[in-house]
Amino acid sequence: MGGFSESMALFERARKVVPGGIPGHQNPMLLVPGQSPCFIERAEGCRFRDVDGNEYIDYMCAYGPMILGYNHPKVEAAVRAQMAKGNLFNLPSPLWVDLAERMVDLIPTADWAVFGKNGSDAVNYAVVVARAHTGRKTIIMAEGAYHGIGSWCTPSTAGIIPEDRAAVLRFEYNDAAGLKALLDTRGDDAAAVVITPFRHEMFHDQEMAHEAFLDVLRGACRDEGPLLIIDDVRAGFRLHMGGSAEYLGLKPHLSCFSKAMGNGYPISSCVGVEALRESAGQVFFTGSFFTSAVPLAASLATIEEMLKTRALEHIFRVGDQLRQGLLNQAREVGMAINLTGPATIPFMTFAGDDDFARITTFCARAYQEGVFFHPYHNWFVSAAHTEADIEETLVKTKKAFEETAEIFG
Amino acid sequence: MGGFSESMALFERARKVVPGGIPGHQNPMLLVPGQSPCFIERAEGCRFRDVDGNEYIDYMCAYGPMILGYNHPKVEAAVRAQMAKGNLFNLPSPLWVDLAERMVDLIPTADWAVFGKNGSDAVNYAVVVARAHTGRKTIIMAEGAYHGIGSWCTPSTAGIIPEDRAAVLRFEYNDAAGLKALLDTRGDDAAAVVITPFRHEMFHDQEMAHEAFLDVLRGACRDEGPLLIIDDVRAGFRLHMGGSAEYLGLKPHLSCFSKAMGNGYPISSCVGVEALRESAGQVFFTGSFFTSAVPLAASLATIEEMLKTRALEHIFRVGDQLRQGLLNQAREVGMAINLTGPATIPFMTFAGDDDFARITTFCARAYQEGVFFHPYHNWFVSAAHTEADIEETLVKTKKAFEETAEIFG
Repeated sequence: MGGFSESMALFERARKVVPGGIPGHQNPMLLVPGQSPCFIERAEGCRFRDVDGNEYIDYMCAYGPMILGYNHPKVEAAVRAQMAKGNLFNLPSPLWVDLAERMVDLIPTADWAVFGKNGSDAVNYAVVVARAHTGRKTIIMAEGAYHGIGSWCTPSTAGIIPEDRAAVLRFEYNDAAGLKALLDTRGDDAAAVVITPFRHEMFHDQEMAHEAFLDVLRGACRDEGPLLIIDDVRAGFRLHMGGSAEYLGLKPHLSCFSKAMGNGYPISSCVGVEALRESAGQVFFTGSFFTSAVPLAASLATIEEMLKTRALEHIFRVGDQLRQGLLNQAREVGMAINLTGPATIPFMTFAGDDDFARITTFCARAYQEGVFFHPYHNWFVSAAHTEADIEETLVKTKKAFEETAEIFG
Repeated sequence: MGGFSESMALFERARKVVPGGIPGHQNPMLLVPGQSPCFIERAEGCRFRDVDGNEYIDYMCAYGPMILGYNHPKVEAAVRAQMAKGNLFNLPSPLWVDLAERMVDLIPTADWAVFGKNGSDAVNYAVVVARAHTGRKTIIMAEGAYHGIGSWCTPSTAGIIPEDRAAVLRFEYNDAAGLKALLDTRGDDAAAVVITPFRHEMFHDQEMAHEAFLDVLRGACRDEGPLLIIDDVRAGFRLHMGGSAEYLGLKPHLSCFSKAMGNGYPISSCVGVEALRESAGQVFFTGSFFTSAVPLAASLATIEEMLKTRALEHIFRVGDQLRQGLLNQAREVGMAINLTGPATIPFMTFAGDDDFARITTFCARAYQEGVFFHPYHNWFVSAAHTEADIEETLVKTKKAFEETAEIFG
């Protein structure tokens, strides 16, 4: 490892011309400042190289999108073929129809689809469609859940005014009784309940949805309202190719996808049931790049390859291999860890690590060894991770565990 | 011209799986239904081919982005070079810093820049930054102005709740006295005035900003509020390479760019003055694809090529050639037209054409001849339009004028 001097120099330049250097989830100050990279030079498969020439086996997948791995030959071939024809036109390319048909075919609760660029585009649209359809205002969401940069839901509140949040009520994820009580008293005013398919906000162990909690949603959500909106932006196609609702046995009215749809090319989608088609068509939804053909081509190729190679089964398998390996190594060094969430989207914390000292130490040592995890945000496994990559990873994490145990043991 | 049967067949397929077939500005029902294409196969330079094999000289530039023309060799070379390294990573590519520095260098009122995907991302961010900085709520905007898909400003209101619009006040564009009266009474509550650099909403003749109107903004906007936000998403780099505020002699606190930044690749930017840097850094702003390196590469190459070839001067020149030609032809057939807006973003209406019968006839005939205009939305000229392309266009529009005059003369 050659240190991070080039990363730090670039970040100093960035701080002069961008507030905070890099805003949002990719802010390198959310990694281990001084012991982690800030900028990336190139990536291939499940590996990337930072601007100082350090190489890593990657477990973030660009925060989710790279489900087939960086620079995937099938996806890139589809992209290049479309680029020869063009990307953005005055009207959509025929691929617009192909992808809408593909989504309707793939997602059991999809009778129609629309496309945007950001996950936030899809979720904000779903909320407005729910309000248009039900004639109700209130949106019910889980406390701490991340649903994007809409002013109704951002995690921080600088510049957010009370009116932005006036029609938003919150419950605790997996608190079936609390959700039921809220729906009993306020459900008649509610346009929709918005939930992620499992609890996956930063700085927290992940929680899969409890059956009792899902039962409350199954009992309360209906076509007249409150509708059920699944925000599958982060988890979509990493639990089930029919959408995470299929994995959970839910029948949402609206589902939102983005990250893994196009293997890194910018696209998002909201899909919905027949009963909402007319309202969906009335809601104003457009953007300069919403019909770009290259991301449509990437998405069609990504979904095709995922299905043809049964990639999701592979990701679950190698994700489980990683999880078992990490659990064994933690046990060997006598440290208690929590490995939570699905095997395809794992997250690791150390028990009792309230100041995150153990996990940041572990991650910093992993970076030194050439493995990239995030100390506070869930991780992602891709189809490009082979069993050999996981074995190589575990050789490196063994050292990271040993060094962390030496300090904290 | 081979008709539009393939377009219509695809649109019928689209209507089954997308509410309204194609939502938003690219809805082909906003052209001349049955006499215009719905889907596009490929494009090159200033020309495109629809799915029925019809070819057109294009005056929409994908609603603005294609400022150097479709498939521009310099932009595509930069894109391919970055694609070989990768597009989306866990952290930005160094190009993130290069483009932020470029924007700060290029835009006189930019001390910092942030990047998103949609124009709406940039404008919504600017509004939240203004509220964060001033501690005030009210946003003042022009009646009918288009600022994107934020719930505070969408042109239609399905699913929009009163709270979304509670802190928004409106004035009539270019009504200096009305704006002054509004600012005199409500300016102390106002976080910002948001304006486009000229009036350019659909279905209306365009209006350049009057000096008296600009003087009101110069007099009233200040660092404590109301701030001045220029929504330059549509016009940016088609009036002045330093942003349209330079063209107008305004000093905005925040400026928003998107369409022409990346010659069709999805990117947007909000830039601002030093006084707002801290507030800008506090506002939550992120998205899965915000740091994609390919659009950064496209934008750097686009700006470089625009500057190196003095492309904007060329666009003004050929835009003026088109305008003069159309005005002459209208005079020759004895029809009164209004050609409004800057030569780089022209728009044509027929005088007294309240039901749009003349302009839709003209456009339908132009499509038959192989020239693509929009009957209700302003047009765009690009650097790929040569003098010979304009001459060829004018041969075709002469017929369209003659046929329109035959019917309506």
